[in-house]
Order: sequence, then C-alpha cells, then structure tokens
Amino acid sequence: MAAPTVDVPIAPEPLLLRAAHGRPVPHTPVWFMRQAGRSLPEYRALRADVPMLTACQTPDLVVEITLQPVRRHGVDAAVLFSDIVVPLVAAGVDIEIVAGTGPVVADPIRTHAGAARLPSLEADALGFISESVGRLVDELDGMPLVGFAGAPFTMASYLIEGGPSRNHELTKAFMHGEPLAWHTLLDRLAAISATFLRVQAEAGAAAIQLFDSWAGTLSAAQYREFVLPHSTSVLSSLADLDIPRIHFGVGTGELLGLMDEAGADVIGVDWRVPLPEAARRVASTTALQGNLDPAILLAPWDVVEHEVRRVLHEGHEAYGHIFNLGHGVLPETDPDVLTRVVELVHSMPSLADA
Amino acid sequence: MAAPTVDVPIAPEPLLLRAAHGRPVPHTPVWFMRQAGRSLPEYRALRADVPMLTACQTPDLVVEITLQPVRRHGVDAAVLFSDIVVPLVAAGVDIEIVAGTGPVVADPIRTHAGAARLPSLEADALGFISESVGRLVDELDGMPLVGFAGAPFTMASYLIEGGPSRNHELTKAFMHGEPLAWHTLLDRLAAISATFLRVQAEAGAAAIQLFDSWAGTLSAAQYREFVLPHSTSVLSSLADLDIPRIHFGVGTGELLGLMDEAGADVIGVDWRVPLPEAARRVASTTALQGNLDPAILLAPWDVVEHEVRRVLHEGHEAYGHIFNLGHGVLPETDPDVLTRVVELVHSMPSLADA
Repeated sequence: MAAPTVDVPIAPEPLLLRAAHGRPVPHTPVWFMRQAGRSLPEYRALRADVPMLTACQTPDLVVEITLQPVRRHGVDAAVLFSDIVVPLVAAGVDIEIVAGTGPVVADPIRTHAGAARLPSLEADALGFISESVGRLVDELDGMPLVGFAGAPFTMASYLIEGGPSRNHELTKAFMHGEPLAWHTLLDRLAAISATFLRVQAEAGAAAIQLFDSWAGTLSAAQYREFVLPHSTSVLSSLADLDIPRIHFGVGTGELLGLMDEAGADVIGVDWRVPLPEAARRVASTTALQGNLDPAILLAPWDVVEHEVRRVLHEGHEAYGHIFNLGHGVLPETDPDVLTRVVELVHSMPSLADA
Repeated sequence: MAAPTVDVPIAPEPLLLRAAHGRPVPHTPVWFMRQAGRSLPEYRALRADVPMLTACQTPDLVVEITLQPVRRHGVDAAVLFSDIVVPLVAAGVDIEIVAGTGPVVADPIRTHAGAARLPSLEADALGFISESVGRLVDELDGMPLVGFAGAPFTMASYLIEGGPSRNHELTKAFMHGEPLAWHTLLDRLAAISATFLRVQAEAGAAAIQLFDSWAGTLSAAQYREFVLPHSTSVLSSLADLDIPRIHFGVGTGELLGLMDEAGADVIGVDWRVPLPEAARRVASTTALQGNLDPAILLAPWDVVEHEVRRVLHEGHEAYGHIFNLGHGVLPETDPDVLTRVVELVHSMPSLADA
C-alpha cells in the first residue's frame, strides 16, 4: 500500500506574501532595495533632465521607473519609486534633493517651536501617490507592489541635520538635550509616515516597508527610549490592513529585536548579521528579508553565485525568507548581474519544497 | 579580634596599564580617541598653515600636538598624534591628505601587480617617529603614551578605493574577486603596520592601539577569511614587547570576538554595544575600552554626566575598563566638556576600590 498523501491546494497568493507569513514557497521570492533606480541605464536616461523630486511626484515617471526593474529582472515584487523625504515635501516642508549631496532642508528643525510647526500631511496631498500606486497595481497584474516610507527617526535626522550626516550629532544632541521637543517632532513624523503608507496600502500596495536607514547609528537604549514608540505607532496604525509590514535599517544588528517589537512581520537584515543569528534575535514568527552584501555584486560571478547560495541556505533557518540585498543596489552594479541573481534564486528549490 | 587585613602594595604602574591587565585601580583611567586634534583651538591655531602630513612628520609639532590635550584635560594617557596613512607615506606611497576629503591616493591598487609593488617600510624611515616618541616619553614623565597604527584592512581600503569610501565596494570586490592579490596586499600592509608600531614601542610607547576604523563594514565571515590572519600577524608580532595591545573599530559588534582572537589585550567598543554585552563577546581576560557616544558630548551637561556614569557602571562588568569614547572626538566638541568628563571619571571610585 502506498503511503498516504495529502493534496495541499496551492493558493494563488504571491510568493512574497507567503514568505512574509512563513508559509511554504516553491522557491524563495526575491526583490532588491533600490532596484528601481541608479543601476539601470533606462532609468538614467529617463532622469537625465528630471530632478529627483519631480520624478517622485509625477505618476507617469513613478509608474515607468517602478516597472523598469520588473521587466528587466523578473523579480517577485515591485517597490514604489520614491524617496524618504517625499512625504515631507508633500506636507509642505522646503526640501530639495541635490545631486551628489542628497536632501537639503531649507530651515532645519532645532527647537521645540520648530518641531511643533512641522506641517501635518493630509491624504489628499498624496493624489500623485494613489494615482501611481493604482496604475501600478493594474499594470503589475497580481505581482505585489511594496509600498515605501522613511521611518520617523530617519526623517528627523534629515530635518535636524539639514541633510545627510555621517555622525548624526545634532540629531543625538537634540534627542538627549530636548526630549520633549524630540517626542513632539517624532509624533508628527510618525503621523506623516503612517499617512504616507496608508495611502499606498489603500491604493493597492500588497506590502509596505518602513525604512529606518540611519537607526543603526543608535544604541539599543537610545532606540528604545527615543525611536521605538514612534516606529511602533507607524506600524501599529497599519495593523488593520492585514498586509505584511517590513522594517529595515542598516547596521542594526543590536536593534533587530526592538525593530521587530515595533510591530514588524518581516525584519530586513543587512549583511553584517547572518540570517540564522538574525532569526534568533527576532520573534519566532517574524520572517526575514536580506541579506547579500550589495558590494558582492561587483565581484566575479562565481563569488556572487556562492554568496547567493549561502544566503538562500541560511534563510532556511528563518520563519520565512525574502531574498534581498543587505542595503540598496549600488549605482555601479551591472544590471545583468541582478538578473542572473534572480534566475539563480528562482532555480533553487526552497527547503520546504525539497 | 579585628578581621585580618592584607596590605596590598600599590605598584607605581600607570592606571591605564593596570586596567588593561585587569588589575585593581582606584578609579577608571580615561583618554579620548582624537583627543589630540580638531576640537582644540590651540591645535587649530598650530595647524592653520601646516598640512596634515607635514604636522605628522615634524617631531616638534607631533610632540606639541600630542601634549596639548594632556595639559588641558588631565587625561590618563597621551596618544601619539598621527594618521592612518603616515606609515604608507613613510614607505613611499604617493598619498595626500586633502582637507575636507581625507587621504587621496595617487595610484590606487587594484591588481596583483599593484599589490606586489607596495613598498615595504624600513624602521630607519621612521626617524621622525622614534624622535617624537622619545621626546614625548621624556616630557610625559611616567604618563603612558599610546602608540598608533591603522590595521591592514583599513589601510587597504584607502589604497584600493583611492580615498575614503562609504560602501568600500571596490575593496570588497577586490577581496572576493582576487583573493591571492588581496592576501599579498594585506601581508605587506601587516608588515608595515607591525614595523610602525614596533618603532613606537621600542622608543617608549607604553601601549599601542591598532585602529581598524572600517572593519565594521565586513561580515564576520569576511573578516575571518580576509582580515583576521593579517591583524593577527600585526598583533602577534608585538607579543614579545609585553605592552597592552588595544584593538578598535567602529560598528564592529559582530566582530568583537574575532578582533579579540587576533591577539588583543583590550578591545575598543563603540557605543552600539553595551560594555556588559561586549564583555560576553570577548575572552574573560580581555579588558574593554570605551564607549561613550561622542555625539553625547554635544548634549547638555546633565545628559553627559548621566551617560558617563552609566558607562563607568557598565564597565565594572569588564575584566578591566579604560574609559574612552566609542569613536573619535567630534570636531565641534567643546573641549571644556572633555575636561569635565575627565574630572567626573576621576571622581568616581572604581568598584574594586569601593
């Protein structure tokens, strides 16, 4: 007598969502942070005469730029082309993105009065976002679109420093020196981030990622006191939407547990912490995303292949695993290598299926 | 009958050395990375018309700049004023230090032939170092002088990238893509680093610190394969000198155990890992140095005081503790705050003495 078998119906649910929920997948889903952008010649051509913020606020361009890597690489998810400061600009904050520098804030926030004056963001200022997301969802035909927002801390660091910063010293001095003003500012930024993500989710984004790019500059004690309540507020405000919430920062090895505690379904991990170790630092039902060092993509293919296989193998120890880089695609990356990585990831059966 | 007491003779050994060896101290010794430099007006005045590399190669200036913070702050150690690229320049590599940019390498190393051509460093090219150290030891009258060198990885990253780098992508691509060339380069750099440190030790430096400033960009697997053998070679070459070897990098939470394994007596810790946790990641007889976030020094004094007390308290869980920052003094730091920190550290009895 043959061993009894069970027919498990395969839901049409996209692999990204299945992995985020720890459900079995035939292969690990893959996308790349900054897949839409600087590594693609078709992106550079489109952006040649268009300032960054114009591109982010023009639905025709947002749709086209978001779709470019999907067409090229065959990834398992699109990610909305945007920038961390877009919701601030939409709220009315005077910010430019200067090529080669990054965001430049006309009037940095360094007082309680400044924090209290930060404008709020109304959903109806985000027509360009709902239109872009709606059109993308139609075009993507079932492929998930990952929505995108900067976390309160990372937005605050730009507003306080006035632009990118190596050491975030003004941010930390403000945080410790004026805690009431700090919490006022972060409260307002959390509301902005939440609104920005909700508009994307309601327009059809299948998942969202909260980018706390610079949180890794903080100790766990600083994160817990000054950041955790506000990122928790953003993520919990989306709990009713029942879509996976991905939470990511760079150099956050000491913070993974707290970033999970903030209400994430998936924690993004940079390349410094192996996925099995990251799995030990988060809850047993939190999935992981990552974590190939983006610099590896500049090495010869045999190195890339070895490292991709290692990450996939290590990902089996996570509750669920979405393959990604440990930070954004570097501008000098050969896009053909990204395509080959997707093919390789798709060619490897997941453990659950093996 | 009174409880029996034991008279423990107090050796005249400096507190820095006692803490490095885990011996009891009346209070925690303190010095600051980059205490000699940009935060001091007397330093800025001296450097106004003097290029950085000239200052580093002129004994009169090295001695004066090294002594400035000792006079001002009353720290427990001097640290030789130098720069990570000084031994490379002494070996004959064409490098400039450009204000506002950092080191600029005329002919970056990106091939095996380039690596093999890296000149070696002979001790007799370091007359300016032995003279500076000898004069400093006389002036310091028993206060320890900490010698200084960049670790092979950090020097390699400058040589390969051609200057400072955010992502070290060329370095990593070279490391993974041309491992033989990489190991040739790092072998040669380890010899340079070892020579540079030995000359300082033989001229009277009481301890040395190996700075692997950018090692934190690597995963533990990358560090173990590509860096550990070479930093081990540097540190073990000094083992016969019987002076404490301090090993430090930024963002190295995942690497502390390996950096200890390389042969350190003291591991420098940045602010991201609390000292009790760092103590768990290194051997039970390895002391710790650190780890106040340098940005905290820009906050109001009550915050600084609270954080200094916390670090001192946490340091009691280490085998030995040398108070320091978690990275170099930021240029905008008020030097009077550094002086107050030293006074505060000196006013707190160590646990062993309490």
